[in-house]
Amino acid sequence: MSSTPEPTTISADELHSFCVAILEKSGVSNHHARTTADVLVATDTWGVYTHGSKLIHGYENRLRGGGLRTDVEPQIVHASASSALVDGQSALGQVTSTFAMNKAISMAKETGVGFVAVRNSCHFGAAGYYAAMAAGENMFGMSMANDVPIVAAPGSRTAVLGSNPFAYSVPERNGNHIMLDIATSIVAAGKIFAAVQSGSGKSLPSGWLIDAEGLPTTDGTKFPQEGALQPMAGHKGYGIALMVESLAGLLSGAAFTHAVGSWLFDDPSIHTDHGGTFLAVDVSSIMPLEEFFDRSDRLIQEIHETPKAKGADRIYYPGEMEWERRAHALEHGITLPGDVVAKLREVAEMVGIESSV
Amino acid sequence: MSSTPEPTTISADELHSFCVAILEKSGVSNHHARTTADVLVATDTWGVYTHGSKLIHGYENRLRGGGLRTDVEPQIVHASASSALVDGQSALGQVTSTFAMNKAISMAKETGVGFVAVRNSCHFGAAGYYAAMAAGENMFGMSMANDVPIVAAPGSRTAVLGSNPFAYSVPERNGNHIMLDIATSIVAAGKIFAAVQSGSGKSLPSGWLIDAEGLPTTDGTKFPQEGALQPMAGHKGYGIALMVESLAGLLSGAAFTHAVGSWLFDDPSIHTDHGGTFLAVDVSSIMPLEEFFDRSDRLIQEIHETPKAKGADRIYYPGEMEWERRAHALEHGITLPGDVVAKLREVAEMVGIESSV
Repeated sequence: MSSTPEPTTISADELHSFCVAILEKSGVSNHHARTTADVLVATDTWGVYTHGSKLIHGYENRLRGGGLRTDVEPQIVHASASSALVDGQSALGQVTSTFAMNKAISMAKETGVGFVAVRNSCHFGAAGYYAAMAAGENMFGMSMANDVPIVAAPGSRTAVLGSNPFAYSVPERNGNHIMLDIATSIVAAGKIFAAVQSGSGKSLPSGWLIDAEGLPTTDGTKFPQEGALQPMAGHKGYGIALMVESLAGLLSGAAFTHAVGSWLFDDPSIHTDHGGTFLAVDVSSIMPLEEFFDRSDRLIQEIHETPKAKGADRIYYPGEMEWERRAHALEHGITLPGDVVAKLREVAEMVGIESSV
Repeated sequence: MSSTPEPTTISADELHSFCVAILEKSGVSNHHARTTADVLVATDTWGVYTHGSKLIHGYENRLRGGGLRTDVEPQIVHASASSALVDGQSALGQVTSTFAMNKAISMAKETGVGFVAVRNSCHFGAAGYYAAMAAGENMFGMSMANDVPIVAAPGSRTAVLGSNPFAYSVPERNGNHIMLDIATSIVAAGKIFAAVQSGSGKSLPSGWLIDAEGLPTTDGTKFPQEGALQPMAGHKGYGIALMVESLAGLLSGAAFTHAVGSWLFDDPSIHTDHGGTFLAVDVSSIMPLEEFFDRSDRLIQEIHETPKAKGADRIYYPGEMEWERRAHALEHGITLPGDVVAKLREVAEMVGIESSV
């Protein structure tokens, strides 16, 4: 095996063009490729490299296999004034999710609120992106999706629900929106794999995993074949994950729990049928926007000025780090970690174009 | 001090009449008294005695002081097709919150979704009640409220946000709705007080509290004068609490963070100006109801049939225990714990009626 390449710095525009070129080579339309690259590159600018352009490698595999379709557009199955059901037709998850949040936003402009449930989607990347789309339109945004079960319920021996991501965003005057994007598991599965790879897989923090008997363990070397992740905050995180499954899985008509396909590991010819849910609430339908921003500025100032714990330098609001990283990345380029560079080089070779990184 | 009385069993109907009688003696209209008793007694039937009829003691104090008003009705300040702002006019929080969720439900019947922000409310009891109101109308329901800061942010030395409760409910065919009702703090403040009272206040589980320097402590004896609760799941719970503050506090125009009045401890003549948010999404606007129930039945069956961890008997869905307790309570009466009995006897004496417990 070749060693991991060095981190590489690339401008956001160049990375975007590179992602579009890869996707187009896989038969994705320019419009869909650009939409997908928008999501992936924005995520990289936030420094969330696990959910940025690295993902394109797995998508490419599924595009080749036919599990992701390039000859379709997401469809509105039906809509009322403020709610709608969208069928993604197994297009790229980013395409379907962007379409769905745009529909939620347009309904919210008319009625104050828009709620869209999505079926036949696929992995959608960073949930926060879609929530932030609403914030960019001066709306409160919420987004969530279900996924393959990997997380235990209190009292279970095996996984019951996916890590079911949940995100929301609150618009800020300066564009640096409050934005939380979390897995409802106690940690991401990737952290277990990383610990195992680095040799500390037998001494994980307690509370992360259960073993084959359903009991707490600090040994991650048998995961995910045996055991499961714990939900965040015990029954509270289990409950929130079940909210996500109920809205994104049940209500949408998508696959739920064990019927969801793994976008990365399952036969690439299979449609994964992920579900999602997108909510937008127009701030100005409740309160004049400037008044809202004044209040929000005061809240954020208050958070920033709260006395710090011994050893702490700053208190951040959710999303603040991501917007600071983005500002830096847009000015100085995105420094992609070596594992991302490796995946992008691989996928460039797969589709037969020169790598930009 | 007199010792705590024995637990006492009373029928839900009798307890309801007793609560109505107490509130009417305090000048609350029959309509408002019945609405408030509906919330409090339902909560007792769920076995959530910290948020049931026991609360009436504190409300009585604030009704006498004028901080809670009896001569007002909640008002719709303005509304669009799917969103509205309600001013509670400092009526009982249960009255305003019920009014707001009913407005959200009626909008959702027309447009698929209803979102209501509330200002000038007060303590609203169990958040889950309002979410379950929506579920009772075959809608997804969500409810939340802000409160006096008592929870730290990552890196803070003092409290930044309230325990900001969050609840949702998903309708089930048999009426036993999925219902999660959580504080976004790691535990309720009441658990700290209970531990201190029982003598174990210096050896709390790690992760519950920070001390006066903002560092983790297991000593709860100086709380809440020094230190603060930790959020559930660290930055994740902090983020969810900030979502609640943004919607229930900022967007509604209510007081936020340290400007919120303490319903229990502040001068009883002060309007606490709590904020709240209520969302209803009509299931049938997205999917035929019977199809939704079929899918939901399958999900719940799957959860129930998941292999159990060693030592575990059952896997519950959120709310399942509460509905089982309610069925038992409606048949055999509610067995109120001694501390609840004591508070109800006290308040009966305060208003000059005979106690029913």
